[in-house]
Amino acid sequence: MSTPPVTQTLARFLVNSREHEFPAEAVHEAKRAFLHWIGCAIGGANNAAVERSLATFKPYSGAEAATVIGRSERADILLASFLNAMSADVLGFSDTHLKTVLHPGGVVGPVVAALSEQHRVSGAHALRAFLAGVEVACRIGVGVYDWHYGRGWHITGTVGTFGSAGAAGVLLGLDETRMAWSLSMAATHAAGLRELFGSMGKSLHAARAAQNGLSSALLAANEFTSSTSAIEGRRGFAHVLGNESDLDAITEGLGTRFEILSNTYKPFPCGVVIHPVIDGCIQLSEKVRGIEVRRVGLHVNPLVLELCGHRDPKTTAQAKLSVFHSAAAGLTKGRVTEQEYGVAALNDHAIATLATRCEATTDASIREDEARILVELCDGRKLAHHVVHAVGSEARPMSDADIERKFRGLAEPVLSTSKIDRLIEGCWNLDKLDDLGTLVRLAAPS
Amino acid sequence: MSTPPVTQTLARFLVNSREHEFPAEAVHEAKRAFLHWIGCAIGGANNAAVERSLATFKPYSGAEAATVIGRSERADILLASFLNAMSADVLGFSDTHLKTVLHPGGVVGPVVAALSEQHRVSGAHALRAFLAGVEVACRIGVGVYDWHYGRGWHITGTVGTFGSAGAAGVLLGLDETRMAWSLSMAATHAAGLRELFGSMGKSLHAARAAQNGLSSALLAANEFTSSTSAIEGRRGFAHVLGNESDLDAITEGLGTRFEILSNTYKPFPCGVVIHPVIDGCIQLSEKVRGIEVRRVGLHVNPLVLELCGHRDPKTTAQAKLSVFHSAAAGLTKGRVTEQEYGVAALNDHAIATLATRCEATTDASIREDEARILVELCDGRKLAHHVVHAVGSEARPMSDADIERKFRGLAEPVLSTSKIDRLIEGCWNLDKLDDLGTLVRLAAPS
Repeated sequence: MSTPPVTQTLARFLVNSREHEFPAEAVHEAKRAFLHWIGCAIGGANNAAVERSLATFKPYSGAEAATVIGRSERADILLASFLNAMSADVLGFSDTHLKTVLHPGGVVGPVVAALSEQHRVSGAHALRAFLAGVEVACRIGVGVYDWHYGRGWHITGTVGTFGSAGAAGVLLGLDETRMAWSLSMAATHAAGLRELFGSMGKSLHAARAAQNGLSSALLAANEFTSSTSAIEGRRGFAHVLGNESDLDAITEGLGTRFEILSNTYKPFPCGVVIHPVIDGCIQLSEKVRGIEVRRVGLHVNPLVLELCGHRDPKTTAQAKLSVFHSAAAGLTKGRVTEQEYGVAALNDHAIATLATRCEATTDASIREDEARILVELCDGRKLAHHVVHAVGSEARPMSDADIERKFRGLAEPVLSTSKIDRLIEGCWNLDKLDDLGTLVRLAAPS
Repeated sequence: MSTPPVTQTLARFLVNSREHEFPAEAVHEAKRAFLHWIGCAIGGANNAAVERSLATFKPYSGAEAATVIGRSERADILLASFLNAMSADVLGFSDTHLKTVLHPGGVVGPVVAALSEQHRVSGAHALRAFLAGVEVACRIGVGVYDWHYGRGWHITGTVGTFGSAGAAGVLLGLDETRMAWSLSMAATHAAGLRELFGSMGKSLHAARAAQNGLSSALLAANEFTSSTSAIEGRRGFAHVLGNESDLDAITEGLGTRFEILSNTYKPFPCGVVIHPVIDGCIQLSEKVRGIEVRRVGLHVNPLVLELCGHRDPKTTAQAKLSVFHSAAAGLTKGRVTEQEYGVAALNDHAIATLATRCEATTDASIREDEARILVELCDGRKLAHHVVHAVGSEARPMSDADIERKFRGLAEPVLSTSKIDRLIEGCWNLDKLDDLGTLVRLAAPS
């Protein structure tokens, strides 16, 4: 059996995407992912990893053509791609293609944004490049998963590179050969080890995936030659970083079946096992407003206490591993965003008091995306709530309104309400936008 | 058996190298490798791959603090490291650590050079950083070779990154923890697929290895945290990019036994199988000067005609695969450098005529580094020469004078004789130099 020409096939798909009418459902999911990554980047922009990267690389930036999302500094398009992808990743809050645990939007988006500030790019054009880049990355991920991830590769660092190389190639107008060069250079840049998880180094992977993908496309546009088969070739990506990779799966249904439809979003910036409790507490929060709570009983899957049973959190990291703090914050504030894990929330007397009144009982018959909550009020009433599937789970994806709410939670500490409104409005109407660059520039404080 | 703390051990070696008195033999080999990589970079600096990289990335360069070797442009230290490592690699003429086929000097050298233009660095300090970086890269190479290379990894791209991260870390004054971070970030940047061989993409690997190693050290110096065990960890380099890697071999004899002593240099810019013939022809050239040659009989290993039997070369690439052109050029010019494969040499009537008078006979009893040559002169005399081991082979390494000659051959089309003399003199006296930067700046035309 001969090897399928995967690299060329993907290159052709990318080149043709410029003229392609994608299904409305896929286009809408691309808008959701685009709004979402900008929100994550705004929220992560002041993280120490981003600060230190900026301090490291700012002296080596060229003309400051591009927005550093969520910050007042600007940078050249390569550094901006790096920083914005890092910001989008660093809270662990990025979009996730569940089949591959790849975070595609947070890698492809920054490159589309950066190029839109160098050359005028319409929203419709940007959306096609973004969608096609996400497709290519997810599909290559499907081809090498799960041996690849199990081996120790951080798939966002490796496979993400193809997405940014592809999307950048679309915006730079590469022809098929040059697009194949770009994808092949993405293959040879692909890197990122899971060993770095738990350190800032982890978010280097998304950052480099974005930046190296953009570099690959820029090199190809400048006639820097490469292989045209470095995905499927004998010494290529699928063989060297994969094991019996499924090459056919990469291109099967390309352009008719869309992997972006399997993209998901995480509603709360904490361990996924406590999402059902948070979801339920937020839903109950309106009903308990202004009334003192005597006791909160949580019936949860055993993993909840195993992974997130922290009783007296003193730091943000600990609070994110505390089902008690999280439940109390959800009930008290009616939302659980990065702010509900910040210093003010950690010192909030109402949250702390309520947390001590929360009790958790584990029950192996309760699924991981399920929780039962019983709130006993001081006025004697009892409120029961059953979360069958937590928001953000595969069975109950975040709605557009949920994504908007998440965006606001991330953006409010950084941007004015007017900018936030215009960003949200702009992303939902991306296909009608004349110039994406004007939208991107809204994502920084003035 | 517990995993040895390879990353920390290498980090300590690097940190201590600042105060270490290395054996004279290793220091001398470091000088040879340093002179050699600069020569290769000068020779490769006008290659199309370098031109196109420069066109691609120059708009994204910060302050032009560093020399682009062999060219009039300048760049920031990250881009200069990239370009100079590419130039050193692009002619396929780089130094080779034979046990691993790694090209260490051409990756580590550019980073040492670039940093010496940002902060004042004495020659002795630079030499220690260079030597220690080369050791670290070669040793990690020994640990993962040959499964790693056989799998499809371009070892210069992967393992080279540790060398530049280590050397840069020495020059940036990193402590042990930060040095381990730097090496761990090198691990997570390590990339490069052999699938790109035959395209410009191949020389991206050395370029990125230099640049990413420097980035890793700069990030660590700016408190960007990382793993401290990403070489030996379960999801680390040796396991993910290696198979049953020999971790103990990486640190065995560290600081007392030197891998740099196994570094070799290639005397002629062409297929290694025709090196014995070229070596012999150069040795005979003085004796035939001014006398017409009737016939040249070459007794060679069968690989010579299999790989380099081109009869009528029209291009540089073809000439490098022609034992006839190469023999004639060696006899006529007394040397075989890049120029003997250039346009002028291809159109040189004397060389072309003599090439037609060369005949090759293959003989399986002749080793790959051996050749027998019989030159019949028109005056009736016959000159026989037996090359037992070609220059540059393991049994007969290039002498200091050979390396100087190679350097001159590469540099003469680009630099003035005065600069060439001062560069050679400076490299042999590197340990006495106050400021490496002044030497590096000589390696560009004014």
